[in-house]
Amino acid sequence: MRTQVGIVGAGPAGLLLSHLLHLNGIESVVLETRARDQIESTIRAGVLEQGTMDLLTESGVGDRMKAEGALHHGFELAFDGKRRRIDLKDLTGHAITVYAQHEVIKDLVAARVAAGGSVVFGVSDVSIHGIETTSPSLHYVHDGQPHVLDCDFIIGCDGSQGVSRTAIPQSLRRDYERVFPFGWFGILVEGGPTAEELIYARNDRGFALVSTRSPNVQRMYFQCDPKDSVDAWSDDRIWAEMHARVDSADGQQVVDGRIFQKNIVGMRSFVSATMQHGRLFLAGDAAHIVPPTGAKGLNLAVSDVRILKNALGEYYKTGKGELLAAYSETALKRIWRAEHFSYWMTRLMHRLDDASPFEQQLQLAELEHVTTSRTAAKSMAENYVGSVVV
Amino acid sequence: MRTQVGIVGAGPAGLLLSHLLHLNGIESVVLETRARDQIESTIRAGVLEQGTMDLLTESGVGDRMKAEGALHHGFELAFDGKRRRIDLKDLTGHAITVYAQHEVIKDLVAARVAAGGSVVFGVSDVSIHGIETTSPSLHYVHDGQPHVLDCDFIIGCDGSQGVSRTAIPQSLRRDYERVFPFGWFGILVEGGPTAEELIYARNDRGFALVSTRSPNVQRMYFQCDPKDSVDAWSDDRIWAEMHARVDSADGQQVVDGRIFQKNIVGMRSFVSATMQHGRLFLAGDAAHIVPPTGAKGLNLAVSDVRILKNALGEYYKTGKGELLAAYSETALKRIWRAEHFSYWMTRLMHRLDDASPFEQQLQLAELEHVTTSRTAAKSMAENYVGSVVV
Repeated sequence: MRTQVGIVGAGPAGLLLSHLLHLNGIESVVLETRARDQIESTIRAGVLEQGTMDLLTESGVGDRMKAEGALHHGFELAFDGKRRRIDLKDLTGHAITVYAQHEVIKDLVAARVAAGGSVVFGVSDVSIHGIETTSPSLHYVHDGQPHVLDCDFIIGCDGSQGVSRTAIPQSLRRDYERVFPFGWFGILVEGGPTAEELIYARNDRGFALVSTRSPNVQRMYFQCDPKDSVDAWSDDRIWAEMHARVDSADGQQVVDGRIFQKNIVGMRSFVSATMQHGRLFLAGDAAHIVPPTGAKGLNLAVSDVRILKNALGEYYKTGKGELLAAYSETALKRIWRAEHFSYWMTRLMHRLDDASPFEQQLQLAELEHVTTSRTAAKSMAENYVGSVVV
Repeated sequence: MRTQVGIVGAGPAGLLLSHLLHLNGIESVVLETRARDQIESTIRAGVLEQGTMDLLTESGVGDRMKAEGALHHGFELAFDGKRRRIDLKDLTGHAITVYAQHEVIKDLVAARVAAGGSVVFGVSDVSIHGIETTSPSLHYVHDGQPHVLDCDFIIGCDGSQGVSRTAIPQSLRRDYERVFPFGWFGILVEGGPTAEELIYARNDRGFALVSTRSPNVQRMYFQCDPKDSVDAWSDDRIWAEMHARVDSADGQQVVDGRIFQKNIVGMRSFVSATMQHGRLFLAGDAAHIVPPTGAKGLNLAVSDVRILKNALGEYYKTGKGELLAAYSETALKRIWRAEHFSYWMTRLMHRLDDASPFEQQLQLAELEHVTTSRTAAKSMAENYVGSVVV
């Protein structure tokens, strides 16, 4: 079998790239180890930057997002017993949309299927060959049979545990990593919303995040020991903790509900540079991970894909490889900006057990600053909506 | 002997307060352990914020500063082999003046002497009494004789090693401290200027700062081990280091000259809260220390004094003590803002041997950010010139 662009991984990066290439008349095949219903139900983040919204809309896959997603013009910062609003729209002219990642995936899969695109689910034993030649190939097993997919380029969109990154020799790339000493305890709640907008809460007991998935489903997180056990947290204990962290002195309270899912995720920052070698290019989580605090993960995958789409478009239109050659350097500017912002916001909002009392006071001083200085608030907002210059 | 306000320490805080109180018709006496020529020749920082300049000018002690100080509308950030300018005037509407602290002290001493003010130099054995009563007193020795100064209020402006802070019971105050694992090696150089504006340089070898004291005297610093020895650094070794850290790829070079002074200073952040107890109030370095990177030390002393002047003015005019009662809380807002900024700028510019490769990359990402995003540059500039909202 042969295609122009072989894509490993049917996450947002791989599916969106396949969709955008199709709109540019470029053929691709997407290989995915999981089943379609699995990728369409794995619950992840859900904050879309303006640029992500725009790209989905322009490429014809934004209808359901626009209808079912919630447009947010700001968010709340809760600390020191009070809540202060960051008015994204007023500060930057932009907004964000809360729309879950697996919904984006459903929309993209539907678009690929409708266009007769090739997404192969349930493959195994994927391996990458010949990336230093002009005719690389993907080997994989599907339905018990070995297959070879010959292509011009291979795009690795298979996440941090995928095979793509390690196909770039370790001697050519450098991995940068920071593992945080805390995790997020996530709950899905059946019940009404606490507030119209997201609440990021900093409390001496730890960080908490309150968000709304739909009018009747709420998504909440609170900082925990990443080695803690879900079983150690009864519903009562969880609600006591959420109230202690989020309720404000003036009486604003978290709205309880029936908890129907609990999980714990670790948090880390990771960047692999370079993101390309020969005919292999990495995009999304395959090359970089951010802690979820800044809501950047999905948006960074989209910005990688936008650059790749332009670079591959130029190559197939003109035969020139300049944009492809510059891909990693171009993408890494935005990535390091987002890594810095995500790290900064994580350090701003979490209980830092490794910080001195002096640095804990600085954290409060910085929260005061970003909620009283218009310039500091604007800088935070520009980073959050993704309109910052890089 | 009796006065209204007894002031311990003839640094910028003590002298300026005494001068401002005099303009408000309030009597004070300043006690200083050192001799006049000592305080007039001890070389310290020299960046005055707009608000500091304004206060000196308004109170009639700004003439020489205006004539001899250098007004700067921006500074340079050097990193990654390039230099980028932070245009303070364009970003904030304000500027800073480079005018050495000991020159400010000369102007203030001259003003106090001209007005018949009482500044007692060369005192010893200063002790503070009765601050929990309405008639506190200062005991001290001068010319071999014991003296007692009775007063309504005592203002501790005697720096971090002075007696004032410890007169507030330890049980009532909390000290916050961060000692940095590096120091500044300072040199005074006879020779022409390298640039018209300050250059803050971040280099893999460490931080460096190039500033101009006068057309023929340059002040430079470079990050060093605080336990290093001045004797270990020959002039040749110093210049090699300065060139390696500051020279830019496009050929801009540090201008060498004859080095006539060398010294090493440690760096720390420190805040003591509360800053008041009974009839005792702390101002300036007696209550807080910043690393010199943000150029905030002298300016914070001035902002403490401004608040105290207003509070004492209100008390003597109306008998009301509300502003005095709120002094510490009022002052600490500005102080924590400056502490945060000084810490941030210190971490932004220095070689951080305790940071991971990931965090070292974030430092570069942040330098790119503050020199490419107008909003981020503006936030830095507002903090630097002292126009930030607190």
